[in-house]
Amino acid sequence: MNPKIITLLSDFGIKDHYVAAMKGVILGISPEARLIDISHMAPPHDIRSGAYLLASVCDDFPSGAIHLAVIDPGVGTARRAIVIRARNRLFVGPDNGLFSWIVKEGSGWEAWSIENRKMMRGRVSSTFHGRDIFAPAAAYLAEGASPEDFGPPCVPLISEWSSARASEKGLFGEIIYIDHFGNIITNITAGDLEHYAQEHRFVVSVAKREIDAIVRAYGDCEIGALTALIGSSDRLEISVNQGNAAKLLDIRPGDQVSVHLRDLP
Amino acid sequence: MNPKIITLLSDFGIKDHYVAAMKGVILGISPEARLIDISHMAPPHDIRSGAYLLASVCDDFPSGAIHLAVIDPGVGTARRAIVIRARNRLFVGPDNGLFSWIVKEGSGWEAWSIENRKMMRGRVSSTFHGRDIFAPAAAYLAEGASPEDFGPPCVPLISEWSSARASEKGLFGEIIYIDHFGNIITNITAGDLEHYAQEHRFVVSVAKREIDAIVRAYGDCEIGALTALIGSSDRLEISVNQGNAAKLLDIRPGDQVSVHLRDLP
Amino acid sequence: MNPKIITLLSDFGIKDHYVAAMKGVILGISPEARLIDISHMAPPHDIRSGAYLLASVCDDFPSGAIHLAVIDPGVGTARRAIVIRARNRLFVGPDNGLFSWIVKEGSGWEAWSIENRKMMRGRVSSTFHGRDIFAPAAAYLAEGASPEDFGPPCVPLISEWSSARASEKGLFGEIIYIDHFGNIITNITAGDLEHYAQEHRFVVSVAKREIDAIVRAYGDCEIGALTALIGSSDRLEISVNQGNAAKLLDIRPGDQVSVHLRDLP
Repeated sequence: MNPKIITLLSDFGIKDHYVAAMKGVILGISPEARLIDISHMAPPHDIRSGAYLLASVCDDFPSGAIHLAVIDPGVGTARRAIVIRARNRLFVGPDNGLFSWIVKEGSGWEAWSIENRKMMRGRVSSTFHGRDIFAPAAAYLAEGASPEDFGPPCVPLISEWSSARASEKGLFGEIIYIDHFGNIITNITAGDLEHYAQEHRFVVSVAKREIDAIVRAYGDCEIGALTALIGSSDRLEISVNQGNAAKLLDIRPGDQVSVHLRDLP
Repeated sequence: MNPKIITLLSDFGIKDHYVAAMKGVILGISPEARLIDISHMAPPHDIRSGAYLLASVCDDFPSGAIHLAVIDPGVGTARRAIVIRARNRLFVGPDNGLFSWIVKEGSGWEAWSIENRKMMRGRVSSTFHGRDIFAPAAAYLAEGASPEDFGPPCVPLISEWSSARASEKGLFGEIIYIDHFGNIITNITAGDLEHYAQEHRFVVSVAKREIDAIVRAYGDCEIGALTALIGSSDRLEISVNQGNAAKLLDIRPGDQVSVHLRDLP
Repeated sequence: MNPKIITLLSDFGIKDHYVAAMKGVILGISPEARLIDISHMAPPHDIRSGAYLLASVCDDFPSGAIHLAVIDPGVGTARRAIVIRARNRLFVGPDNGLFSWIVKEGSGWEAWSIENRKMMRGRVSSTFHGRDIFAPAAAYLAEGASPEDFGPPCVPLISEWSSARASEKGLFGEIIYIDHFGNIITNITAGDLEHYAQEHRFVVSVAKREIDAIVRAYGDCEIGALTALIGSSDRLEISVNQGNAAKLLDIRPGDQVSVHLRDLP
């Protein structure tokens, strides 16, 4: 059997030793685990961005993978630590909405609260649960521990930014992520759009601009043109061909976006 | 036999999940592949910088390594996807000049166009061929597929920025890369210089400055001094000891550089 | 037996191919080594920051790990290259103070000067000892070479910034590191504080501000409040709950910090 894959996602950045500390702890418990970084550059304390990254990529990994995710502004306070089984894989992290899309969009889930001190680092700090609670949990899971060993069942938090809202007037969503190229990702999915607009043409409103060109590929319009498309994560994206849409529109996560049917002449 | 090494190079940045998506796909096909990042911070859409990084580092890896490189502003348009065998190793990526130095400077090469849908992801998007075409290709190669299995032979593109131009008046080249320390890398090689100047002294002209101190090590001149040297990639570099040459000269890839013989007094 | 872990720390950044070059060289010598990055974003040429990162994380790795560290402003000049055995692990890098805390704070050490050319890359450049000397040394150690094979015993450099200074007037230290979140790390340890202040209350002076709230967790004070705490590396840190303390105080490594007993009313 192949060694278990453990993916790591955080907002720890790549400058400090925090990610390596988690990896060192994991390798002390599960020496053969395959460690794969998803990102450690999620915007600091931005649970929504982390939730997007995790939900977008986890299914690209083989089933059985363990996904460790730590965006945890409430570390050391009352928020729960959880293990979730969903989509034929396991998730470990703080219960603060980070797993909203994992729990909402899958075909079922189970979750447990991490309370068993034997599954934690010998000394648990109040500032670094990534190293002291979440990394050991992922490593013990890689070594065959059962999620039930960690604590009692629980119900994960689902944050309200995880859905767009549909009404007669249109689809109302928000920006959930800005990627490295400045592409703007929304919480409006391909499925939302199909359900809303079907064969009609629609127009996207964002940052006081209207976009009616929905293209197939980033390169399918003029260089510098603002366009909308369904990106590789099956979400509505706003982009500029070979440019930076987020800078052009001066936009950030949490800002509004909406979709309306187009008036025919 | 040791598991195959697959190196990854892209301009995807490290904030998003795009690199992890490629790794997840690779591990689904080739669970034991050794994945090593070269860089994902090549300047966005800058094929020349990516070509430089790849050519500079590939020979440091053991022979038999597979080098996946994705700087692909033309994704979803007509540019070809290719596999190249050269330098006792394999290369996979878009055919847009990214492999110019691999093909030019080696002792021979063979190349194939990737057209066989069976070697791609089940669903091929028009925005993310890194995940859907190139990552699977690298993984199948790691599992022993032959380059011939991917499609017909082809001839890779060689971009004109891949060579400096020599004339009686001097060597005329351009800046191809700015590194993390602000060192300025040119397309003038140690070989070009030897051929041109041999035992003569020469002077480097760049950004309206002339540099005649050619030193052995970054620390071999005064702190803050502008110097030229042959760097670890056997190319002419402009640097400032413990400083940032690119900022000092306000220079960027594509800018001109030239070398002239020095007038003796 | 599990393959050896080699961790990598440098100021090479993540944009260039320099880190990958070291990894390629290592895998050529030790094909099964487990490579784990600590950080390559230590501030350029900042030995103190690198020393902090290394000392903070090395003990989180299983014993027997090999820690390669290259922050090396003096590359190509007379500074020594060394192997150190300490804390049940091995360290490889330039002898410029980078291992100050490894040597000072452990329970004993041995060190050797790397002089044996057979343990280096065939061709040793004067600009890139990370690839040509340090990476091969780490890889040969992973393959079972003895530190004695590299050269004669030596005594590593200990830099003076590695200790705070205690007097009747207080504890006088300096800033050694700014982390990704803007937390300010000092060279004052939990042990220094216990020894100095014991059951007394104390006040922290930094950047003309006084802080008397010593909290347990980042989230234990109001959002935006400036606080001091003992961080996960057992050092005095200055932080702002969900904010950036270094930006707020406009502070950088090398700046002063002190601790005084609090006057009781």
